[in-house]
Amino acid sequence: MSDAAKPRLLRALAGETLDRPPVWFMRQAGRSLPEYRELRTKAPDFIAFCHNPQMAAEATLQPMRRFPLDAAIVFADILLLPKALGQKVWFEAGEGPRLGELPALSVMEAEIEASTGRLSEIGETLTRVRAELEPERALIGFAGAPWTVATYMIEGRGSDRSGARTYAYQNPEALDHLLDILVESTARYLVMQAKAGAQALKLFESWAEGLAEDVFERIVIRPHIAIIEKVRAAGVDTPFIGFPRGAGALVDNYAAAVPVQAVALDTQASAVQGQRIQASGKAIQGALDNLLLRAGGSAMDARIDALIEQWGKGPYIFNLGHGVLPDTPIEHIERAVRRVTGT
Amino acid sequence: MSDAAKPRLLRALAGETLDRPPVWFMRQAGRSLPEYRELRTKAPDFIAFCHNPQMAAEATLQPMRRFPLDAAIVFADILLLPKALGQKVWFEAGEGPRLGELPALSVMEAEIEASTGRLSEIGETLTRVRAELEPERALIGFAGAPWTVATYMIEGRGSDRSGARTYAYQNPEALDHLLDILVESTARYLVMQAKAGAQALKLFESWAEGLAEDVFERIVIRPHIAIIEKVRAAGVDTPFIGFPRGAGALVDNYAAAVPVQAVALDTQASAVQGQRIQASGKAIQGALDNLLLRAGGSAMDARIDALIEQWGKGPYIFNLGHGVLPDTPIEHIERAVRRVTGT
Repeated sequence: MSDAAKPRLLRALAGETLDRPPVWFMRQAGRSLPEYRELRTKAPDFIAFCHNPQMAAEATLQPMRRFPLDAAIVFADILLLPKALGQKVWFEAGEGPRLGELPALSVMEAEIEASTGRLSEIGETLTRVRAELEPERALIGFAGAPWTVATYMIEGRGSDRSGARTYAYQNPEALDHLLDILVESTARYLVMQAKAGAQALKLFESWAEGLAEDVFERIVIRPHIAIIEKVRAAGVDTPFIGFPRGAGALVDNYAAAVPVQAVALDTQASAVQGQRIQASGKAIQGALDNLLLRAGGSAMDARIDALIEQWGKGPYIFNLGHGVLPDTPIEHIERAVRRVTGT
Repeated sequence: MSDAAKPRLLRALAGETLDRPPVWFMRQAGRSLPEYRELRTKAPDFIAFCHNPQMAAEATLQPMRRFPLDAAIVFADILLLPKALGQKVWFEAGEGPRLGELPALSVMEAEIEASTGRLSEIGETLTRVRAELEPERALIGFAGAPWTVATYMIEGRGSDRSGARTYAYQNPEALDHLLDILVESTARYLVMQAKAGAQALKLFESWAEGLAEDVFERIVIRPHIAIIEKVRAAGVDTPFIGFPRGAGALVDNYAAAVPVQAVALDTQASAVQGQRIQASGKAIQGALDNLLLRAGGSAMDARIDALIEQWGKGPYIFNLGHGVLPDTPIEHIERAVRRVTGT
């Protein structure tokens, strides 16, 4: 495809510096949109909703109709994978995810091959969305990264992760085994997503914060490398975005070691840290504060301009540092996207 | 005083590289010690306990009797200052601090001068401890840094700080005014502590995480610089340790801008980040994972050795990345301190 027709997001992921950065927002689909809240009334069970390709495709496309965004991200959840591996997962309204007891590792290991098939609806969602989306807008697939998914699997819910970090110290072999199971099943899941229409793949390491450097190397960097190598070994060359959220100075270690095409930065990334990563040949993504998006106004405009000024001279994808908050006014999202796209 | 007699902690703060680093632990006094839990039964109200020089001195000294630590830190709390400024502060058993409504800024401003006098017992505690402590062991005074204290004052309790961060975006002038009040009262409080016997002063910015770079410059870096300048203007040359916990890559900005003698690093600091700060002429402190201290064993020993190997070639103070957890076995603390001191 000619460069002009190639989606802006994919050009940035290929290392191009563009006249203006592509823009999309984490959680651009979901509770901040009234049409999403309306749609969910038809399928109140969140997991069933994610496994319904018609509904999930509609949720994926809703923000694309409202805003001039450069990319859609498939509507799904990082906890669909542990469910596909045999752990019980459900959502308590207003409280977030709950998981049943961690199955025996040998039992889950035997389910790896079958798990990808149990996630086939997510592939269907991608295929539907790709068929409807304009060619200049890219479609992103994703998975939770192994450590982050493991924290939920071990603790049974969202938490401060200290239980999972303690488990990492006290049961290193068991944790490594669990991470290996997640590496293999995640790689297969992402290969399936790429074949179904995902043009970029994002690994969400939402809980990379607070880890000592040696632990970070072992439970974040090593599994990310292993996933990407497995995806490449399957013949899939789809670009990767890695998001080691909260990793602070260790984001530098991550960027140096993991063969992603872009490193997604969180809110507290420094200008020079992002520039260092760009200078090393990778694209970066980020990192408007989601609280500032919610607050809106001229302070938001000024920060958007500052981010583009500091990072727009290299390959750069505009995004938030964290997901859109449910109570973010739609006009602020609209205003931010238009500020970046100049429309 | 001759170099040999000078406390090891102060030698490291003066930029010396020592044969082995001085060691102390955040929250070395407190609930991990049975003698502390026993002492508290005599004064169950936590704030009254902090304001009782005899009891607070005893709590400060308890870990010094048990372990060959190189420094004591005065037993107190960062929320004594807002109380001295007129905000209601109390502790709910098992739930942590609670604060009443934020007083009008003009009212608190008028209380700055009186606030230092209301904290005189903390000075008495320092004087008592200094009189009892061996000369080769240093005594540290401390205060909460303005932004961290402000988050409690605004939100009324410990939290994820998103309310305070939103306040920072929506009421920038009011926040700056509140920070100015805290800068002035904190500087006076620390001058008083130095005159009462503190040989080093630590600024705890416990909630530096998740801040965008421009916000971090405004609400963390600027107030820290202002406090130190005010303390120096009062003729006090006591060394400062700054602890921007959770600031990630922005710790580099902090180290470059704030005239502290040492930067305390949290658990996720990278080896090269610490070395960069040492190369710039400052000491560093940190950063054993408190969960690993609780877990203990040979993995803890190996990590202690690795930290000393990576940072001991420059001015370095051994510590945790966060405070000792209440359920940490005493034998693990003992083992860690002996590992560092070689005793």
